[in-house]
Order: sequence, then structure tokens, then C-alpha cells
Amino acid sequence: MSLADFSDRLIELALWEDLGPGDVTSRLTIPPDQKGAARVVARSEVVVSGLGVFQKVFQKVDPLAEVKLLAQDGQVLAQGAALAEISGPARSLLAGERVALNFLMRLSGIATLTRKYVLAMGEGSSLLDTRKTTPGFRALEKAAVLHGGGRNHRFGLFDGILIKDNHIATVGSLALAVQKAKRDAPHGLKVEVEVDEIAQITPALEAGADLILLDNMSPAQLSAAVELVQSFFAPKARTVFLEASGGININNIRQVAQTGVDFISVGALTHSAPWVDLGLDWL
Amino acid sequence: MSLADFSDRLIELALWEDLGPGDVTSRLTIPPDQKGAARVVARSEVVVSGLGVFQKVFQKVDPLAEVKLLAQDGQVLAQGAALAEISGPARSLLAGERVALNFLMRLSGIATLTRKYVLAMGEGSSLLDTRKTTPGFRALEKAAVLHGGGRNHRFGLFDGILIKDNHIATVGSLALAVQKAKRDAPHGLKVEVEVDEIAQITPALEAGADLILLDNMSPAQLSAAVELVQSFFAPKARTVFLEASGGININNIRQVAQTGVDFISVGALTHSAPWVDLGLDWL
Amino acid sequence: MSLADFSDRLIELALWEDLGPGDVTSRLTIPPDQKGAARVVARSEVVVSGLGVFQKVFQKVDPLAEVKLLAQDGQVLAQGAALAEISGPARSLLAGERVALNFLMRLSGIATLTRKYVLAMGEGSSLLDTRKTTPGFRALEKAAVLHGGGRNHRFGLFDGILIKDNHIATVGSLALAVQKAKRDAPHGLKVEVEVDEIAQITPALEAGADLILLDNMSPAQLSAAVELVQSFFAPKARTVFLEASGGININNIRQVAQTGVDFISVGALTHSAPWVDLGLDWL
Amino acid sequence: MSLADFSDRLIELALWEDLGPGDVTSRLTIPPDQKGAARVVARSEVVVSGLGVFQKVFQKVDPLAEVKLLAQDGQVLAQGAALAEISGPARSLLAGERVALNFLMRLSGIATLTRKYVLAMGEGSSLLDTRKTTPGFRALEKAAVLHGGGRNHRFGLFDGILIKDNHIATVGSLALAVQKAKRDAPHGLKVEVEVDEIAQITPALEAGADLILLDNMSPAQLSAAVELVQSFFAPKARTVFLEASGGININNIRQVAQTGVDFISVGALTHSAPWVDLGLDWL
Amino acid sequence: MSLADFSDRLIELALWEDLGPGDVTSRLTIPPDQKGAARVVARSEVVVSGLGVFQKVFQKVDPLAEVKLLAQDGQVLAQGAALAEISGPARSLLAGERVALNFLMRLSGIATLTRKYVLAMGEGSSLLDTRKTTPGFRALEKAAVLHGGGRNHRFGLFDGILIKDNHIATVGSLALAVQKAKRDAPHGLKVEVEVDEIAQITPALEAGADLILLDNMSPAQLSAAVELVQSFFAPKARTVFLEASGGININNIRQVAQTGVDFISVGALTHSAPWVDLGLDWL
Amino acid sequence: MSLADFSDRLIELALWEDLGPGDVTSRLTIPPDQKGAARVVARSEVVVSGLGVFQKVFQKVDPLAEVKLLAQDGQVLAQGAALAEISGPARSLLAGERVALNFLMRLSGIATLTRKYVLAMGEGSSLLDTRKTTPGFRALEKAAVLHGGGRNHRFGLFDGILIKDNHIATVGSLALAVQKAKRDAPHGLKVEVEVDEIAQITPALEAGADLILLDNMSPAQLSAAVELVQSFFAPKARTVFLEASGGININNIRQVAQTGVDFISVGALTHSAPWVDLGLDWL
Repeated sequence: MSLADFSDRLIELALWEDLGPGDVTSRLTIPPDQKGAARVVARSEVVVSGLGVFQKVFQKVDPLAEVKLLAQDGQVLAQGAALAEISGPARSLLAGERVALNFLMRLSGIATLTRKYVLAMGEGSSLLDTRKTTPGFRALEKAAVLHGGGRNHRFGLFDGILIKDNHIATVGSLALAVQKAKRDAPHGLKVEVEVDEIAQITPALEAGADLILLDNMSPAQLSAAVELVQSFFAPKARTVFLEASGGININNIRQVAQTGVDFISVGALTHSAPWVDLGLDWL
Repeated sequence: MSLADFSDRLIELALWEDLGPGDVTSRLTIPPDQKGAARVVARSEVVVSGLGVFQKVFQKVDPLAEVKLLAQDGQVLAQGAALAEISGPARSLLAGERVALNFLMRLSGIATLTRKYVLAMGEGSSLLDTRKTTPGFRALEKAAVLHGGGRNHRFGLFDGILIKDNHIATVGSLALAVQKAKRDAPHGLKVEVEVDEIAQITPALEAGADLILLDNMSPAQLSAAVELVQSFFAPKARTVFLEASGGININNIRQVAQTGVDFISVGALTHSAPWVDLGLDWL
Repeated sequence: MSLADFSDRLIELALWEDLGPGDVTSRLTIPPDQKGAARVVARSEVVVSGLGVFQKVFQKVDPLAEVKLLAQDGQVLAQGAALAEISGPARSLLAGERVALNFLMRLSGIATLTRKYVLAMGEGSSLLDTRKTTPGFRALEKAAVLHGGGRNHRFGLFDGILIKDNHIATVGSLALAVQKAKRDAPHGLKVEVEVDEIAQITPALEAGADLILLDNMSPAQLSAAVELVQSFFAPKARTVFLEASGGININNIRQVAQTGVDFISVGALTHSAPWVDLGLDWL
Repeated sequence: MSLADFSDRLIELALWEDLGPGDVTSRLTIPPDQKGAARVVARSEVVVSGLGVFQKVFQKVDPLAEVKLLAQDGQVLAQGAALAEISGPARSLLAGERVALNFLMRLSGIATLTRKYVLAMGEGSSLLDTRKTTPGFRALEKAAVLHGGGRNHRFGLFDGILIKDNHIATVGSLALAVQKAKRDAPHGLKVEVEVDEIAQITPALEAGADLILLDNMSPAQLSAAVELVQSFFAPKARTVFLEASGGININNIRQVAQTGVDFISVGALTHSAPWVDLGLDWL
Repeated sequence: MSLADFSDRLIELALWEDLGPGDVTSRLTIPPDQKGAARVVARSEVVVSGLGVFQKVFQKVDPLAEVKLLAQDGQVLAQGAALAEISGPARSLLAGERVALNFLMRLSGIATLTRKYVLAMGEGSSLLDTRKTTPGFRALEKAAVLHGGGRNHRFGLFDGILIKDNHIATVGSLALAVQKAKRDAPHGLKVEVEVDEIAQITPALEAGADLILLDNMSPAQLSAAVELVQSFFAPKARTVFLEASGGININNIRQVAQTGVDFISVGALTHSAPWVDLGLDWL
Repeated sequence: MSLADFSDRLIELALWEDLGPGDVTSRLTIPPDQKGAARVVARSEVVVSGLGVFQKVFQKVDPLAEVKLLAQDGQVLAQGAALAEISGPARSLLAGERVALNFLMRLSGIATLTRKYVLAMGEGSSLLDTRKTTPGFRALEKAAVLHGGGRNHRFGLFDGILIKDNHIATVGSLALAVQKAKRDAPHGLKVEVEVDEIAQITPALEAGADLILLDNMSPAQLSAAVELVQSFFAPKARTVFLEASGGININNIRQVAQTGVDFISVGALTHSAPWVDLGLDWL
């Protein structure tokens, strides 16, 4: 719902900036009653994301433009496979084409990259996104991460507590910061704390942290952290989970996963995914 | 001006999605009257773009947050150099930090990539962007291309005429489409036509095209096209310019430039630029 | 921040509906350059809430209107005490007065009622609000609950998980619903489940619920529930908390609190608080 | 029409604050294709108001959600009677339920309270609302007053002239203020003047006031005022009407009405009406 | 206030349509730090209206652009007189110039034409505007009518009752329509009825109409109408006023006024006023 | 598309200002279920423009209101011919009538005046509009100029380069300004330069201007300018076009055209067109 609100506003901005007072070339060369049709095709293997917003762009441009979806978000498509067909007034298809593809190529790019990371990581850990998303696109981009097989970290600053250096420094100590948060945390939110040294883990556990983020640690440090936390609990009774973050890429993610951390968060999923290559073939 | 309008709306959306009903962690750990300061630092060489929007994010979060810019858009900064300092109520700095950096890292990423392309291309041609921009970000991203040393193609569908396959097919022939456009073109706009075969060039010239886009041609074809167009005019009296587009990357751009085309347009500048790495060091 | 956005929009709507094309009476009787001043006074004991939005109303009407706050949100004021002074162009004060007071009297009404409930409840439990808020006013009204000494339940459907009858019926059993939520819950959110019979408590505990909402139970049932949950854990190691909800009013809240539940949620705090009586005395 | 605009905006705000990035619990427990249905039932006698906005909430959440109205605004329903049935995708019903009920319970609360006042008042006078409405809700709340059998005072500052203390003080005398307003009043508006002493009535009549508001007067004073005004006119030729305001509640309203005033205005109708109790029974 | 809201929105639209992604010519020829100044001068005698919105345009374009007003709305200026001086960044002045003048020339055109009508009409009657205003400009244009010496009819459909043919036809008779309106009219509104035959006047008077609009009547008919209404009342006790409307222009308005009608309404004031000629002289 | 956005916003503003909290007269006299129908008729010869926005007004007021168009934009209608029929709920027709006609009468006024100018001008030149349009109405008014047989100058500051006095003064000379613009002009835009003396023409031609605007020149000067430019090119090889502007009205436009200029631009088309007279006859 609010996801729809944000994409509505982005579509509105995008059509405004692209169309301004109108598509001059089409006005000069395409009769108003000319019909057309085209098919969106994957030019390499892609994980699809963004078909809803793709469709909505054309609905906004012209209610007479029809979009027939031939795939669904989250689907893995081979090169050459079709994602959608559009048909209707040719001027309207040309007016919406670029904006619609700009959404679809970007979001599918995120889903496709996420899947590569998931495959590289292997099983045992969960891959998380971050808040390093394109401004205004968070809901769309976090959905793309789900479509690629990842999971979502907190959406924003309001639906998760994550105590970092600054918070600790202000309160005075990690233990105090965690205790304070535990005591006053809004109903329903866990308390996560970021640590960058092994020595901070025991205070975090003792203060009652629900989650610990291990920042920029080497695989060896991560393994030590996992072991330390395991030993804090009775066997099979561990109730605190560990997240690795920082410096993780597609080459080293499997090694990180093998340390036994529960979650691995990677900013590049959303901040540096190249667009996938989609073609619009006119019929 | 309208650029400001768009960035205002994007900032609004971005703060909304990130802050929602508020930053829980800060509320629990940082006193309202706590002050803070931090410095944004380049973690690798970057071309800066987006300082204006970076600054505006904090102004929107809290008029008491101060941003001191230490660089300017378009500047090339070495690793370790500072871009800006922020100071003011700690809660406000933490509330704006992620959104402000998300803009700055993305836009500087585009400027930085553009510069790499410009350096790879060498002199003689101009590097152009495309309409493959993030929806809503066109003005910001096209400014980033300028900051990186590139030039801008048309902003949208309204401030340039570009006749493509579809338009030609509808009108019946390239010559007719160009003539029609020349006759009825709005006051002040040139007529560009896209060709994908050498054989289309002479009709384009005869019909009066002002610009010719050579789509997906090999360097050999591009050289032939340049030669053909030169020969159409008296020496030094060429009034039609050539743009190469399609399949151009950082490895082959110099070869393309050496064919003598006037413009080279590259979608990757905006659609696949990785973010630059900026750090926020608290003081 | 987003709180500010919502109140900005509400103020905009409120001024629009009240002023429309302008205050006719003032235009007919008050010269444009006439100055004025007035003081807002409590006509009975109140807990103040909403001074920020009160001030902003006048700023929107006229930047020349000055508001001097004489109290702060959360403060308990005796009858006759002053909350604020306004001064500036008389037409602007008259234009903003009603809207500004409508906000302040409503929000202070909620803070004042909350305090009455807190005093009636006594210590040991925390008083929570609900989602039964005036549409569009949630952030303002939840802040008013804090000002009155209460605490906030989840803000909306996005920052807390609360499994109710419908969810259980759809999944098939309470245990399955809780397990499913625990497995896939977004990073950082606890899982709360609503039960209306004592017999549902043990399955909820075994399935790993973090919080249990006891719906519409008598004090005797609540006491039994508390005892049952205590016995599930080792002494002093209880990690699951209990919330009582439904049918609780200012007369029976102390009895509910004495059962030992951790939280008591009361919809009336926001949905049925009468406005406090504030007067605007012209100086 | 503009009424629709305001409720659209309020619905938009309300859904935003409640749903934010989405209903987590439903996403975790309810399949996207799950259908559901529920009935809204009065848990005590109510006068209905707000069915239109109730319906519109669900339409905004999901066009596939259907709302079948079983009553109409203004109808008096006995305890247990149904107001509406909703059906459609279960996730959408759960997403809209709370917001839709928050509108309906509040507005029906106003209609229900208004009816109580009308019944308490008896015949002979008309019951009026005031401008003490929830910011942004004026059109909805004034409609609720009509549904409860009351009548509306002016909507805002633009469609009625009401001269109060301040205006009189500025102009210099009540007589001058009324004369000035009569002379320059916009085409189509009557002139009402507020008096707080009997001695002001004759000057008001002589200056040509169309309506006189008797502020905070005792029943004895009100009776005296009525008598004085009657005596100013020939029998059955009275053209000036009287409104009583201030300090009137459900216990003393009949006594006020019996003084013969034409209108009685009561702020509590809108500012302090408790919500009615409505239940949503899932089918 | 709401007047400000409307002009804000119009300014926003106007700047958007004129500037789009920016003023290309200035960007190419004017350095960003170039300053400039210019004076707005009347090229013929004008009545000024719209200085506030003129000023606000530049404030929106650039807070550094300064506007010094040299006249005030309603003032009659001789040819050659200055209305305002602008100074500041040259690019900003050029960006706002056209939009600002478009407002000022249009609104001053209305004020100037209104004054011509007022002078042509002579004394005894009041000149009224109509609802035939440019969509979105009603508040600005009605203010311009005041600046030119006219008076305002109702603002819209909400602050005045005007019973026309359709209403009468629906209710069944003029008398019934007027009686119905009188009985249920909102607190504070008078009842006006439109008649197009002399024979309708007596029923209108008997039914209690407060105002009578005489539609498309000849001066002879208007005189007869005035006489008929006078005779209905005791000498000097007339409480019903007459408005002439339809077919009135600057040549016949004096004759209409001399019939003794109280008000004369003229659509052309707002719907067909030519712009005044203002020049922007650069200093 | 963006044209639709602007008209949507203008309609929204116009309905808001006209309806505010509702049409009081209709509410008092017309039953909610009353149906009605009416026909819009030309009361003199008109060129139609604005039927789309006319239709949309009613759709916004009430989806049940039907508008049947009986003409199309650009059509020349004789006195008495019908433009459209409306039917549906009578209250909705009355609510939208004034706003819808205000658009249609204004825009048809522009189309009608444009046609008069085109007929007066004769063949050989093209009639252009200017940027002197009603703020917010540019797309609608420029469309009306096309409907009347004129052509459009640049839409705004972003889709055409026009170098004027100020730009020249800043750069230092006309030749330099034109050269600078030619060198850095965005892809696809021509360079036009305004001259007010014959002596500036040769430098403009030599610097490479694509278009020359001849400002406020007499027919004799215009003829001299045309001759000068012709002589600069080989016979039939002229590539630079001339636009006359300033002081041109319906009486002298034929003389201006006969000088041989290519374009004649006239501000009065949009800034001073009187509304056409349309009647709404109820059926």
C-alpha cells in the first residue's frame, strides 16, 4: 500500500522529467490513432523484479495502454525469454517505454545480483540488505532483494533498534546503552548492538542484547565470535543471533558464511547492482 | 529551480521511508540536547557530485544542523580528502546521515565513472549521457555527468527530436519522417535521426537531418559513416554531426572516438555506476 | 521529522477548512496593521501536549505572529496557569486562534486523561496506548500519551508483530502461526500473540512467542495467566511478557495491574479523551 | 466534492501512518490469495455516521475489497445491528480495518452524542455545532452533527460574520462594529454579534444585527434577552434571531431551550464525543 | 492565507512549465555569480494589482533575489511610473521575470478595467464581479476587482445562496424554493433569487428573499422593478436589495445604474480584461 | 500527459475555490437523486478549444456525470451550434458547470482570436505564440493556439535558446554570445538571437545563429533585414530564419507578413483574448 504510494510518486516524477510538455518526436511522426505493440525480452539471464511498477507506468501514461505480464517477480528467466507485452496507442507506448524500462532494469538488476550472492554464499546463513538504497526506492529495492532470494534487514530507523558507536559513546558504555534500550524499547522491537571487537561481545550478552552485529571482522574473528556466543548459552538454547557486516563481496561471502554467523548484510545488493539488459522488440 | 523541486521531493520521500515515525535508537540513547559533529571523507579517489542535495537533507531534518562544504561538485578528490563537515544536534545528524550519504555516494559514483570514461576516450569526441537514468533523478544524474566531464544529451522527450525505427516505420520512410519533422518541428529544435545501416545516411542528409545517430555500429562502420558524411559537404563546411551509440564500454571507447564521430553516448554512466565509498567519521 | 510532516499537513487542512477564502469578520472590523496579544490559560488542571503544533499553526498563518511558550509538553499545570502568549498582527492571531487551540485542547486532553489512568493504575505495570487513534494524528496522539506518563504500543502494522484470531485461523493453529512468524520475522521485531483463553498460553510459550496479549480476561484469569507463565521459566529468568487488554477503565485498572501483568493497553486514552478547557485571554 | 478531497487526504495520512512499509503480521501469516469477510456490528445503540469514508478506506487499500453497506448515515441502530459487510483479499481487509473503524467509530460517536443532546433539549430550539472540530475533520464532523439531528453553524471564518469582543474593542463600540459590517459585508452574508450583557442587546438591534449570540448567560438572563428582543419588534414580526452559547451541557440544555432562544450551540458535540463501540466479526 | 496557498500552487505550476529542467540560454551565457537589477515600469496608466505574487515568484526562484516594491496594490499609476525594482543573481532574475510579469500584467489588467467600469458607472450603485474567473485565480482576481474599486459577489457556491431557474424548476415554484431556502439556510447566509420577469418579483418578496437578481432586463424593466420593490416597503424601510446582471458593458452601465438598482455585476471584469503593458527595464 | 497533470491540478484548484465545503443552494433545493441534462451552445462563431478539460471537470466532480462531446478542438462552429451535452445527477452538473465553462470559454477565446490573426495575416508567414501565457495554463493555451491555426514558439526556457540584450551585455558582444551558445548548446537545440538594429544581423549570421528575432522593427526595417539575410546565402540555400516580434496587431499583421519574415509572434493571442460567449441550455 504505502509501497504503492511511493512508486506512484516516483512514476509521477519520472514521467514529468521525461515527458515535460510532451514527446515532440512522436507528435511529429506518429498519428494519434496509430496502434502498436512490443515485447520486453531478457538479453541475458535475469531474476525479474518490478513488473508491477512497469505496468503502472503505462496505466498512468494512458489507461488505453495494455500491459500483459508474461513472468512474475522473483522468476529466473533465461536469455531471450519474454517478461511482458505492451499494446495500445503507439504514442502512449513510446511515451512510457523509457521510464517503465528504467524501473524494471534497475530492480531486476538488484534481484539478479542478490541471487548471485545467495548462490555464492551457500546455505546456513541468511543474506540481508542494508539501508544503502536509492532515495525513495527503499520499498521497491527491498522487494527486489526478496525476489532475488535475500532477506530484509530493518526497513528504516523506526522498525529496528541498532546501537552503534555514537550511541554507545553518548551513553557511556555498551552495557549501559543496551540496558537502557532494553528497558525503554518500544513494544515489539528487539535490541541489536554493533561491536567491532571480540571483547565487546560478553558485555553485550550480559546486558541482554537480542542481536549482535559484528562489524568489519575477519573470518577468524567471526569464528571466534560465534564460538564465544555459543558458549554463553546452554547447548541448543542460544537466543542471541549474529550478523556479519562490512567488506563482504561475492568472492569472500562463502568463507564468511562458513564461520557460522546467522546473517550476512551486503550494501552492494542495492547500491551497486548494474542494470540488467532488457530489450523492447516492436511487433 | 525545477531541479530543486525534484530533489526536494526525493529528499522528502527518502526521509519518510527511512525515519517513518522516528529514529527509535537515538530516542532511546541520545539526549535531545546532545551535540555532535562528523566529517565526510573519501575512502578512494572520487569526483564529487551532490553536495547541494547532501546539504539540503540536513536542512530538512533540522534547521539547526549545519553543513560546511569542504569541496565542490566536479572536484577530483584524493583518498582521505574531506568533502564536508556536519555539526549540530546529534539526533538530527544521525537522522539525516544515511539519506544524505545515499544521495552523495550515488551521484559521486556517476561523476567518478564519467571521468573514467572521459579519460579512456581521449580528446576529439564528446561523451554524452542517455535517458537511462534512475526515475526521478534525471536532473541530479545529468548534473553528475557534467561534473565528471561529460556532456548532456537531450533532457527528455520534449527538448530534442530523435527519430527512431518506430517513427520511420509509421511514416513510411526515413526521408519522409525527417522531412515531416523538419517542416513542423517546434521553433528551436534540431532534428536527429537514428540509422543502423550506412545506406540510410545519404537519405538522412538529403532530407535535411541536423544530427545522425549511428546505432550499434562497429568501428569500421563508424569510420565509413564519418567519411561518407564528410564527403557530402564542402571542406570545413560540414553542418551535420554524428553520434555513436550502443555497445560502447570503457575498453572500446577510445577506438570508437578515433573513428571521428562527434559524440559518443553511453548509458552505463547513469545506469550502472557503482557508488563511491565515503566514510562519515565522527569528531 | 515525519511527525512534523504529518502535523504540517493537518495544519494545512485545518487552516484551509477554517479560513477558506479568508476571515470575513476580521476583514470588516480589524485594520490590517492592528496589533494584538493574548495568553492561553488552563481553566482546570491539565497535562500539556501539543505546544509545538500550536506554535506552528501561527507560523503558517503569518511569520510575523509570535508565540512565546510558557510551559512545555508533559508539564502538569494548575488551573489558571499560562501555557503560551501570542502576539502580532491581530488579524493573524484571530485567523489562527481556533485551529491552534483545537490541536492543543485535544492533545492536552489525551495527556491529561493518560495521567489520570497512570495515577489510578499505580506502579508495577506500564500503561500502553493502542492503534485507536484519530486518523492522521497518530504521531501527535502517541506523543501525548508519553506526555501523560504512558508508553507506546507499536506505532502501526509495520513495527510490531501481533498475531490475532484471524492469523491463527488462517495458518491453522496458534503454534504454527507463532513458529512461522518467528522463522520469517523481519530482523529486529518480536512476535506477540493474542490469546483469549488460558489454554492457549502454553502453546504460545512453547512456540517461542516473545509477548502474549491476554484479551478481555477477568482479573482472576489474568492472575492465573501470570502464574502459569512464571512457572514456565526458572525463577527470575522469565523472558516473555504479558499485556492485558480489553474492558479496562479507570475504575478497574488498579485491580488489573495487581494481577502482575507487565503491560495494560487502553484504547480510551486516545479515542475518548475529552478536550481540556483552555481559555484565550486577550491582553 | 471538497468534502471528498479532505477525507481522501485524511485517509491517505491514516493509511500511511498505520501501514508504513506494510503489515508485517499479515505478510508472515496470511497467503496473498486468501479471501475473507467480516461484519461491522453495533455493540450498543448508535447513530451511524461515516459510512462513505469507511467504504473509501477499503477502496484505497485495494480495489478488490468490497464493502456492502447495511445501514445509512443518520440511521439509529439497536445494539447488535449490522452496519456493513466487507469481503475480499484477507490481507487487504486486515490492512484497512483499523483505519476504517477509527473513522466510523469517531464520526458515529459524534452523531450519537448529538442525538442525545437533541432528545434532551426537546423541541422549539435548534441545536448547533461550533468550530471546535478536529483539525481536518470539519466537513466530516459537521455532517455527523446533521446525522444526529443537529444543525450546522457557519463552516468557517469565510461563510458567516460573527463579531466578538476583539472586533468590538478594535472598532470602538458594538454599534459601530455592526454598522461597519452591515455596510461592507460581502453579498449574501448576515451579521451576527456576540453579547455578554443584556445591555448590549438594544444597541445590537438598533445597529441592524441579523443575529445575536448570547454568551455564557444564565437561563434567567436568556429569558430576559428573549423578552427584550421580542418587544423590539411588532408581534410576529421579529426578524432577528438569538443563539445561546457557553456552559451548556446535556443536563441543562432543556432549561436553556425553554427560555425561547432560537439556537443553542454546543462545542462538546464535536470536541468531546466518546467513540461508539463497534465490533468487527469475521465470518 | 488560503489566498497564499492558491498563489503558491499557481507559482509552482508556472515556474515548472516555464523553467522545466532549467533556463538553457542563461546557463550558456550568464555566469552563476553575475548580478543584475531591473525596474518594472508602466507603459500606460494602470491600476496596480498583484505585487505580492510578483514578489513571491522571485522568492521561490531564489531567496537571494530581492524585490523592492515601489507602489501598492490599488494605486493608480501614470505612464512611466515604476512599480518595483528587482535585483540579485542575474540568472534568477531572468528565470522569474516572465512568470512574475505574467501574473502582474494580468491582475493589473483586471484592476485597470474595473476602474474604468466604476468611473463609467458613476455613483449610487456598487459594481460586482462574478464567478467567471480564471480557474485557480479566483482569490487573486477578486482582490484585483477590489483594487480597481469594485466589490465582490459571493466567492463561490458555498458562501452565498443564489436560486436560479434550475432550482426553481426542481422545487416547483419560485415561492417554494425561496421558502425552503429560508427555512434551512445555513446560519449566516442570505437568500438571493434570480428573476427574469417583473411578475416574479412580488412572489420573491412575499416568500422572504433577501436579495433579488434581475437577469438580462432592459433599463425600462429595471426601473419598473426598482419601483415595484420600493412600493412593497414602507418609505426608507426597504430591506431587500436588487442586483442587475447580463448584457451590461462599459457603454450602457451608467444607464443601468441610473435605474436605481443597488448592485451591477459584470463578468467581463475578470473574463475579458486585456493585460496592461508593463516593461522590465534593466539597470 | 504532463499536459494532463497540469490541467488536473488547475481543475482541482478551481473546484476547491468554487465549491469549498459545498454548493449550498443546490443542497437546499435539489434532491440528491434528481437528474438533469444541458447543452453547451455557441452564442457567436467560435473556434473550439478545451473540450478535454471541460469533460474532465465533470468527471472529477462526479463519475456519474456524463459528457457527450458534439464537436472537436480546432473546429469552427457557427453561432447556435452545440459543443457538448452533459447529463447526470443535477447537483453534480450544477457543481461543475461554472468551472467547466470557465476553462472552455477562455481556451476557445484564444483559438478564436488566433484564427482571426491567421486570416488577417494571410499566407507566407507562420503565426507564433509567446511565453505571455496565464500562469499554469501554458500547455492548454499553446494547444488553443494550434487549434486556431497558429504555431508554437518554444514552450519554456528549457526547449529553445533565445539570446537577448541581457545575455549579450553579459558576454560582451552578440558575436561572442552566439558562438558560446553554439559551442555548448545542448544536443538538439538551435540558437536564436534577438536583434533590434539591422547592423546586428551580419554579426549574428557570421557567428552561426540558426534563427534571428527582429524586435520592434518597422515594416521597412523588416524588409531590409530579409533582404540582407537573403544576400548572405546562395540562392535557395538560406538556412537561417527570421522572426518578427513586437507591436504587431490584427491591423498591421498583413503588412508585416508581406515583408517576407518567416515567423510573426504575437503575445496578444494568449494574454488578451476575450472569452467567447457560450451558453448552457438546460434540457
